[in-house]
Amino acid sequence: MQVQVVVVDVSVGSKEIESVGDFEFVSRKDLLAPYPGPAETTQNVLPDDRGQAIAVMSRALKNFLEKAQVDGALAGSVGLGGSGGTSLISSALRSLPIGLPKVIVSTVASGQTEPYIGSSDLILFPSVVDVCGINSVSRVVLSNAGAAFAGMVNGRLGRSNVYSSDNERLTVGLTMFGVTTPCVNAVKERLVKEGYETLVFHATGTGGKAMESLVREGHIQVSLQNSLGVVQFRIDLYLLSHDFGFVFW
Amino acid sequence: MQVQVVVVDVSVGSKEIESVGDFEFVSRKDLLAPYPGPAETTQNVLPDDRGQAIAVMSRALKNFLEKAQVDGALAGSVGLGGSGGTSLISSALRSLPIGLPKVIVSTVASGQTEPYIGSSDLILFPSVVDVCGINSVSRVVLSNAGAAFAGMVNGRLGRSNVYSSDNERLTVGLTMFGVTTPCVNAVKERLVKEGYETLVFHATGTGGKAMESLVREGHIQVSLQNSLGVVQFRIDLYLLSHDFGFVFW
Repeated sequence: MQVQVVVVDVSVGSKEIESVGDFEFVSRKDLLAPYPGPAETTQNVLPDDRGQAIAVMSRALKNFLEKAQVDGALAGSVGLGGSGGTSLISSALRSLPIGLPKVIVSTVASGQTEPYIGSSDLILFPSVVDVCGINSVSRVVLSNAGAAFAGMVNGRLGRSNVYSSDNERLTVGLTMFGVTTPCVNAVKERLVKEGYETLVFHATGTGGKAMESLVREGHIQVSLQNSLGVVQFRIDLYLLSHDFGFVFW
Repeated sequence: MQVQVVVVDVSVGSKEIESVGDFEFVSRKDLLAPYPGPAETTQNVLPDDRGQAIAVMSRALKNFLEKAQVDGALAGSVGLGGSGGTSLISSALRSLPIGLPKVIVSTVASGQTEPYIGSSDLILFPSVVDVCGINSVSRVVLSNAGAAFAGMVNGRLGRSNVYSSDNERLTVGLTMFGVTTPCVNAVKERLVKEGYETLVFHATGTGGKAMESLVREGHIQVSLQNSLGVVQFRIDLYLLSHDFGFVFW
């Protein structure tokens, strides 16, 4: 199976890249084209401040990927970066739906990854050595990442229609922690017997946020909250979702 | 390409698993067989203390994998776990050489991963939901992880002989931070011109540890340390390595 590879330049340095070998290439200018800069600067020029430039570039990448995804043209997304690059790319990749392959080979995979991954299924591959040229270590690390990404994209395209019937079952998200486990398990068993799919989340910060993401993406249609540690009283979020049930007890 | 899959039970709970479908299976008993318990307990029984049991199991897994790797029977290793399982499995997987595919689908991929990954190329896949049965989310997450792992193993076996000639070049590890960058770059350029391969490491905790791992694994034969932040005066380590050069300047 072959997929088309498009290379997108999200660099914010002073040097612009014009092309990358034989690959289809989206230059920085093209990526920023839908975002005219402030009137006093030339169009499409990034802000001088590096932090602001990263934010602008990250938003541009996010919009680009979301459009490609909605158009059905996106099979997955893979990036490469140090701490700045990981931050820029991860913020765009996190917004893609769960299951769509998203990978960053990163110098900051071994450390505090929550700011990059959040509650998403973004995968950080440790670069082990600096992201700077090909050497005996980066070659095996990048080869592994490329092979893994190709495997994910291939696997996903191969099974794309196999599980579509699953979407017909209503999915109930449940929160749980130690003391509520027996109760949640009993409820879960009953729901499964009645034909619902259930997703259990530990009532920790990440578990709660993961549930909220899945609600937003439409994976969860009903949420049963009996482990109130997780409830952040974001009922507004749920009420905005159509046909969404929200039960405390 | 097909590889043989062997399922290894590393659980430490009270319930022992006897088999897993049609897969070749290494039971807990078999894994622990080379480690007879203390004389007063029955052979192969895990300690009652969960922490101790995890440590015993992790060591048994590590020895099992290292033996399989030395025997040339290990194409990669993939695990699945919560925080306890990730800790148990990662400690064994970290000891495998760089480049050998090592993956854990984990509930703790989004957070502080340094205790699990260290300076290795272990990849943590965020499980997003709890590791507990198959549902609409875990299905795509586990499918992606399986496909990625298969891709890595396939890719690695496919290219196994392509880069072997690279090993003939001597590899020099250099440490660098901000103020030493111009110097390190100049040295690096000269070394490359002379036919050496160079690996640059940021003089941070992780960079230094990564270099030390690569020294231990034989990827680096000479280390140039001009960014002393990283030097932990572990010269004993280097002196133990045969033919190892170590230069301060």
